[in-house]
Amino acid sequence: MKRTTYCGLVTDQYLDQEVVLKGWVQKRRNLGNLIFVDLRDREGIVQLVFNPEVDADVHKLAESLRSEFVVEVIGKVKARKTDNPNLKTGAIEVEVNALKILNKAKTAPFDIDDNITASDELRLKYRYLDLRRPEMQKALMIRNRITQTVHAYLDKHHFIDIETPYLTRSTPEGARDYLVPSRVYPGHFYALPQSPQLFKQLLMGAGFDRYYQIARCFRDEDLRGDRQPEFTQIDIETSFMDADEIREMTEGLLKDVMKETLGVELTTPIPEITWNEAMNRFGSDKPDIRFGMELQDMSQAVTGAGFKVFDMALENGGQVKAITVTGGADKYSRKQIEAKQDYIKRFGAKGLAWVKVTEEGLNGPIAKFFNQEASAKVVEAAKAQVGDLILFVADSRKVVADSLGYLRVDIAKELDLIDQDQFAFIWVVDWPLFEYSEEFDRYIAAHHPFTMPNEEDVALLETDPHKAHAQSYDIVLNGYELGGGSIRIHQRDVQEKMFKALGFSQEDAEAQFGWFMDALDSGFPPHGGLALGLDRFAMLLAKKDNIREVIAFPKNSHASEPLTNAPSLVAPKQLEELALEVELPKEE
Amino acid sequence: MKRTTYCGLVTDQYLDQEVVLKGWVQKRRNLGNLIFVDLRDREGIVQLVFNPEVDADVHKLAESLRSEFVVEVIGKVKARKTDNPNLKTGAIEVEVNALKILNKAKTAPFDIDDNITASDELRLKYRYLDLRRPEMQKALMIRNRITQTVHAYLDKHHFIDIETPYLTRSTPEGARDYLVPSRVYPGHFYALPQSPQLFKQLLMGAGFDRYYQIARCFRDEDLRGDRQPEFTQIDIETSFMDADEIREMTEGLLKDVMKETLGVELTTPIPEITWNEAMNRFGSDKPDIRFGMELQDMSQAVTGAGFKVFDMALENGGQVKAITVTGGADKYSRKQIEAKQDYIKRFGAKGLAWVKVTEEGLNGPIAKFFNQEASAKVVEAAKAQVGDLILFVADSRKVVADSLGYLRVDIAKELDLIDQDQFAFIWVVDWPLFEYSEEFDRYIAAHHPFTMPNEEDVALLETDPHKAHAQSYDIVLNGYELGGGSIRIHQRDVQEKMFKALGFSQEDAEAQFGWFMDALDSGFPPHGGLALGLDRFAMLLAKKDNIREVIAFPKNSHASEPLTNAPSLVAPKQLEELALEVELPKEE
Repeated sequence: MKRTTYCGLVTDQYLDQEVVLKGWVQKRRNLGNLIFVDLRDREGIVQLVFNPEVDADVHKLAESLRSEFVVEVIGKVKARKTDNPNLKTGAIEVEVNALKILNKAKTAPFDIDDNITASDELRLKYRYLDLRRPEMQKALMIRNRITQTVHAYLDKHHFIDIETPYLTRSTPEGARDYLVPSRVYPGHFYALPQSPQLFKQLLMGAGFDRYYQIARCFRDEDLRGDRQPEFTQIDIETSFMDADEIREMTEGLLKDVMKETLGVELTTPIPEITWNEAMNRFGSDKPDIRFGMELQDMSQAVTGAGFKVFDMALENGGQVKAITVTGGADKYSRKQIEAKQDYIKRFGAKGLAWVKVTEEGLNGPIAKFFNQEASAKVVEAAKAQVGDLILFVADSRKVVADSLGYLRVDIAKELDLIDQDQFAFIWVVDWPLFEYSEEFDRYIAAHHPFTMPNEEDVALLETDPHKAHAQSYDIVLNGYELGGGSIRIHQRDVQEKMFKALGFSQEDAEAQFGWFMDALDSGFPPHGGLALGLDRFAMLLAKKDNIREVIAFPKNSHASEPLTNAPSLVAPKQLEELALEVELPKEE
Repeated sequence: MKRTTYCGLVTDQYLDQEVVLKGWVQKRRNLGNLIFVDLRDREGIVQLVFNPEVDADVHKLAESLRSEFVVEVIGKVKARKTDNPNLKTGAIEVEVNALKILNKAKTAPFDIDDNITASDELRLKYRYLDLRRPEMQKALMIRNRITQTVHAYLDKHHFIDIETPYLTRSTPEGARDYLVPSRVYPGHFYALPQSPQLFKQLLMGAGFDRYYQIARCFRDEDLRGDRQPEFTQIDIETSFMDADEIREMTEGLLKDVMKETLGVELTTPIPEITWNEAMNRFGSDKPDIRFGMELQDMSQAVTGAGFKVFDMALENGGQVKAITVTGGADKYSRKQIEAKQDYIKRFGAKGLAWVKVTEEGLNGPIAKFFNQEASAKVVEAAKAQVGDLILFVADSRKVVADSLGYLRVDIAKELDLIDQDQFAFIWVVDWPLFEYSEEFDRYIAAHHPFTMPNEEDVALLETDPHKAHAQSYDIVLNGYELGGGSIRIHQRDVQEKMFKALGFSQEDAEAQFGWFMDALDSGFPPHGGLALGLDRFAMLLAKKDNIREVIAFPKNSHASEPLTNAPSLVAPKQLEELALEVELPKEE
């Protein structure tokens, strides 16, 4: 029999009609001589009732129903005696007159319920059960609604969906590649792409004008909450558009997505902030602007107070900055503040100075350095009031920004200062072209080596590359980097200078990227684009705190897949065909 | 300046207006003191004219334009003196008053033109140039229109786009896997998926009800014209639908695609043929039904004629069948027919017997075996007329089908019998569940091991599995297998029988697929689906004969990528991190 509708959609419009439903038994309970079954499908739950007076055999068969059995029922929709206003179908129930058990189920290792207590590992091992839970269904439907909206919007704007290769060439810049051994060329390897960057630029060179792709990307890095070995980006590239036009086009896309997924009206234009201002005000290149508590420059206010830590930081070219926790004087004990000191050590901060603002003046370990006049200057510079807590960090610009930037968010979460229903987008523009990498002990590309410097900064590439800024822009949502992009280099000579500034010898640049620089010589149009992280976008819209919650079959924190047990050992013949031998590191 | 419109879209609606255009110089020619430039973008070509009387400097700069330079121009749209009816923009030209050269170009290794003579390898090495050619642009736009239509149709029908992993587990059934070494678990490997088969079934187990994905798939096989190491399928799965419903839903999809891509009205329902009938009538499980020349059973007509080859084939349980080439008597010489004999040897045929039908009776090497009465029977059975050529093969059923099936298509192409504007879809249903594999010397799954047998054939799994037929269906377009699908096994006991019939020991089945059979125990709904080959679909709609022509960056026949030179050698450190050593086979 063909299904009439989904279980979760049987409302009173079906009253007194016969319906055919298919779904999973959520639970069964007997009440007197009646049997009640909650039947579940992806759209929700409907109540079935089995009455022996309607059909004794059907009633008897219903006795055998267990949780997660799959059934087909035919029944009449009737009004319930007492409505359940929590259910979309709560005004009706279905009096069943035919029942077919389509499949049985063993007892599940956890209940199919949103209040799950099973471990992450168990949830992944039985992912097909975990995904039955309504919140997981909803999360993946939100993700689907994003991608559908992206396809529709970009198609309407004449973008062409073009697939780029997943088996491609390994490049040394960037993160670690996943490699794929070649059978035809033993000892040679493909790499899975970290992004379709060069291919999408080639498509601009090929004249496609507007490209997009919802592309899988791969990075063999150690995993964190918002990282997976494979992730998905909404990848966009256009020719002949400048950064403003690309941002405007992107805003239209974001507007449609917010509307279609959550019914939220996004106000555009989205505010813009320079990277510099973002670092100064929020201590972050991905500022969460849903709350204030901005970083205040205290350098002038503390100068001359005689507190050595502050003085030395300033003498060394550093900064003294502070955040003011409104009403924080009562909310934080000395002990709690000291715990925050530990928290910011991971960002390189050596200490956290603090004062509470009281009716009687400043209070706290460093209060003694400030006389009444100096105290007033501090309170003014910190934009504080009586009852507030002022938290200071004195250090290099980077350490101050990182420490106070993260502390600001930490405290805002702790004090519940963040409106969880708000979606605050902001563009961060005018990035430095390079950033210093502690790991490599040299300047690396802040975004990637194909980013166009600001027009007036091209000359800096040969003199002071680290002073150059880029024609780049990140889109930030609620403190997360949702995506980013830039205008790209479309001229060979600029690209050559860029590689040189990154420390490539001419030989290395030629060996790695010669083929691409040749392409730039073939009539490349000015072009640019951006990429949005789909996983993160879905996570934020579904209000989850880990991208695993919006990926159907994610890897665990060891990059393995508890359901299928991937990665696994393979047959010796498979390795032989690839001319590979495994050389396990010796146990010590 | 913002572009007014694409070059190829400047029609007379812009007459006397000023436009801003950006594009590539297709060619420049001087005519008197005027310079004409064909400016090209993805939508087509527009004629620019530079008149020194309009602006002498601009005219001078235009002198320097070479093919493939990228330019921005401002100009006035004027009517042409003589229309070019071959161009969409042929009624107008743009009188340029401002010109900016956005990028220069070196001389390309081949002309950007549809009449290309460059080798495939050169085209791939300079793919960004090859893709500039209008026919390549059009091919990829057709592909894009297919995917856009698929997204829109399936979204409208409540399918959810869900991504499944690309880093997954290697399984021994099927083609050779591409492997990806794990860094976290040395000696362990992921595999790139040959299809999302098991994951999409798990999504049905998880209750998503309707899934789809435009999924990349990977097979490390030797390449042919319509094979690539990575290919794309439109992957669909549904719960609670039977095969008829799935076919009907698919037909709606195909109807929309044909309409949106080519404006073709596809008549539905699409005809259905059983696998058995397809083999009998067309000698193929992917029959091209755009022409006749069906296989005729000659067994009765030739019995008793005394031609030993025929008699022996029949005695050995084989067949004698023929195809009749209408008017073929004059079109094929003895020598040409002998060449066909060589052609069918690759299918195992030992010979090709033939007669021509003349006014005087049969003619040809075996005519002597047939007296007047027998000749009449032959002509009738072959549905031949005077002037026709009858081609016989006598052998096992498989050899007869393959030889005559391929010969039928070969001759139809040669004689131009195929209407190239026709798109002939047909469903091939009721496939055998197993087919004999010469390679493995055992029965293997005709589709895959998760295909549901016909209800009445489940019992055969334990007695005569090779007699069982499947609830499966292929969709064939113009003689190509466009896709296929089936109802899947949703019960553990049937799945266990299936593995047993395939020769798995219980231990092996458990080791490889235990996790999946456990899932079947958790309340799996009846489900089924299908997959369409996107590359092949795009190839057929773009009227190309190789899927490389509808893939932006395909691999060559050695699975390598001449543009980037993938696969490549990698750094020793990369192998070390993966605990791998390359052991090249020794030269002999």
